Amino acid sequence: MSHMISHSRRLRDTPFTPGVEAAGVKGYTVYNRMLLPTVFESVEADYHHLKTHVQVWDVAVERQIELNGPDASRLMQMLTPRDLSRMQDDQCYYVPVTDQRGGMLNDPVAVKHSDTRWWISIADSDLLLWVKGLAIGAGLNVEVFEPDVSPLAVQGPKAEALMERMFGSAVHDIRFFRQKRLPFASTSFVVARSGYSKQGGFEIYVEGTRHGMALWEALFKAGEDLNVRAGCPNLIERIEGGLLSYGNDMTAENTPLECGLGKFCCPAEGIDFIGRDALAAELASGPARQIRAISIPGEPVIPPRTAWLLFKDGLRAGQVTSAAWSPDFATNVAIGMVEAGHWQDGTELTVETPQGARLARVQERFWA
Amino acid sequence: MSHMISHSRRLRDTPFTPGVEAAGVKGYTVYNRMLLPTVFESVEADYHHLKTHVQVWDVAVERQIELNGPDASRLMQMLTPRDLSRMQDDQCYYVPVTDQRGGMLNDPVAVKHSDTRWWISIADSDLLLWVKGLAIGAGLNVEVFEPDVSPLAVQGPKAEALMERMFGSAVHDIRFFRQKRLPFASTSFVVARSGYSKQGGFEIYVEGTRHGMALWEALFKAGEDLNVRAGCPNLIERIEGGLLSYGNDMTAENTPLECGLGKFCCPAEGIDFIGRDALAAELASGPARQIRAISIPGEPVIPPRTAWLLFKDGLRAGQVTSAAWSPDFATNVAIGMVEAGHWQDGTELTVETPQGARLARVQERFWA
Repeated sequence: MSHMISHSRRLRDTPFTPGVEAAGVKGYTVYNRMLLPTVFESVEADYHHLKTHVQVWDVAVERQIELNGPDASRLMQMLTPRDLSRMQDDQCYYVPVTDQRGGMLNDPVAVKHSDTRWWISIADSDLLLWVKGLAIGAGLNVEVFEPDVSPLAVQGPKAEALMERMFGSAVHDIRFFRQKRLPFASTSFVVARSGYSKQGGFEIYVEGTRHGMALWEALFKAGEDLNVRAGCPNLIERIEGGLLSYGNDMTAENTPLECGLGKFCCPAEGIDFIGRDALAAELASGPARQIRAISIPGEPVIPPRTAWLLFKDGLRAGQVTSAAWSPDFATNVAIGMVEAGHWQDGTELTVETPQGARLARVQERFWA
Repeated sequence: MSHMISHSRRLRDTPFTPGVEAAGVKGYTVYNRMLLPTVFESVEADYHHLKTHVQVWDVAVERQIELNGPDASRLMQMLTPRDLSRMQDDQCYYVPVTDQRGGMLNDPVAVKHSDTRWWISIADSDLLLWVKGLAIGAGLNVEVFEPDVSPLAVQGPKAEALMERMFGSAVHDIRFFRQKRLPFASTSFVVARSGYSKQGGFEIYVEGTRHGMALWEALFKAGEDLNVRAGCPNLIERIEGGLLSYGNDMTAENTPLECGLGKFCCPAEGIDFIGRDALAAELASGPARQIRAISIPGEPVIPPRTAWLLFKDGLRAGQVTSAAWSPDFATNVAIGMVEAGHWQDGTELTVETPQGARLARVQERFWA
């Protein structure tokens, strides 16, 4: 079923919206109360292009939370089970953020500028309110606010070539999940080697809405012969790569261990954070369910808009939350949360789709 | 420009979505990460029907935050400048929620069940994270969570007749912004005389997703000869009535005084809440800008998707954030934030719309 999106100020445009719409965006989702493009030519055509060339993505919806002040690092560590004590000033960390029960409130990327200044590049929840509420409730000495920063991603096999033309050879020195401030026109931007695809690339943290379209246009001009196009996070490619989507594949009902993020959880090392006791208990008992790659062989499915239930011999065994037909792997690729006892590689389950029951096979690994 | 909305689990369906889609919903917006219908027949046809008959609205997006425990009332008062000390157990209060700078984080309705149990029926921001963060940061003894409650509104001149058929004559005894628990089938629901229109009506707080479609269908069956239809908050009608939309007409950048909510702000009476000092300072100096009704005479405008700037003699004088053609008042009705010095009744300003500059006249009062 196809529905129109009703535009209003509440569904915020981004600094790049004029470029996105001139490029012929066909669909949007809403993410952090802001427009996120979902399709340009078609999800499949966008997918093939992303894997072959280079795309510029409006990911301004990755809003930033700035923590600025003497207690910034203390507050940042309160938010996450991941040990931040050895993090360097140019590093970016993927950090699960947990509540007191160990439920995931967001799965952002923390960008460290210094011990007294951090950005949190957030997934789809108003994490600003959580961080501000904690800071005020606990009386910490830190400013917490949303700065005028809008990430623009450059993704795909030719991303490095395009970025070199734009920012010079300094881009080659940026290692994975590291960042560096590089000049652009009369200003400069934080540039990180990161992004929500497995095709390689960068995210440019555009500070100042007024610079948005200048950068957008400069990238398209510089990349003309690289076949650069406007793109967006691609449903098929991100499932193949096992990139989780907060709100789809996990919610506040799930813990980092359930999300397969155990390697970022180190409550035994004396780190103090919210949810520590709950996580310690879960580490002792093991998670009750876990994220898995799931293949659904046969005809292409229509991607889910609600969770599809998984069954084993008629009993609940979990749910599938993201699924799409993969042209490259010639199967439906999916992400699901599978109950303990059923998550071994090769386990065959039944998934209830709106178009009927289908075979669902649990896999050890994602596709890419 | 018309764009498709891309459905996914992250844009949550509601308990009433099957009914909404069977009724032929054409457009959606996203509100609290959930689908909110925006148009069935057309915005104008829906408007005329709402003012003449009775509509059933899926407003499950008004998510509830439950505060439950010994410190519930203390926490509730921390959230808002409105004095809650004399509130009775069956009352609903419209409560601006402010941050430490006096910025509006939400404009929800607080539903009091008892001194130790409250619901907050929220506008479009994850207020749950703010309330939980404060409670944990301050070490309060209270549970804060989103219960499985989804409001369904019955609005329009025939709402009372339909509700009597559904719940009996007890509905007549519910006064404006009061609530009462009334039986339905094997369960019971909190029913309040409230809603996001000026046509009169009720909101039914449906506890338990499984009861959603049973109530939906019962209302349509009972109201057949009342010409009951599926509807939704109507852009034209809510502007005529001066009903503000959080995220459209005000954001965290605005204070309750700017939003014309001064009557709900009483920091002098010894009430302690977050933002008290900022609000006291603003009460002394007066707000820098204020919400106003604005008429834009002449041809119908296309409703804004970003703020339209207001000018007086070439200088910034505010912005228009909601606007639509009103068939009943034969003018464009609008809501704007007007800078001090320009908000007197009858002031003539210029508004920059994407289709060109137009005359904008400030009004003392809204239309309905």
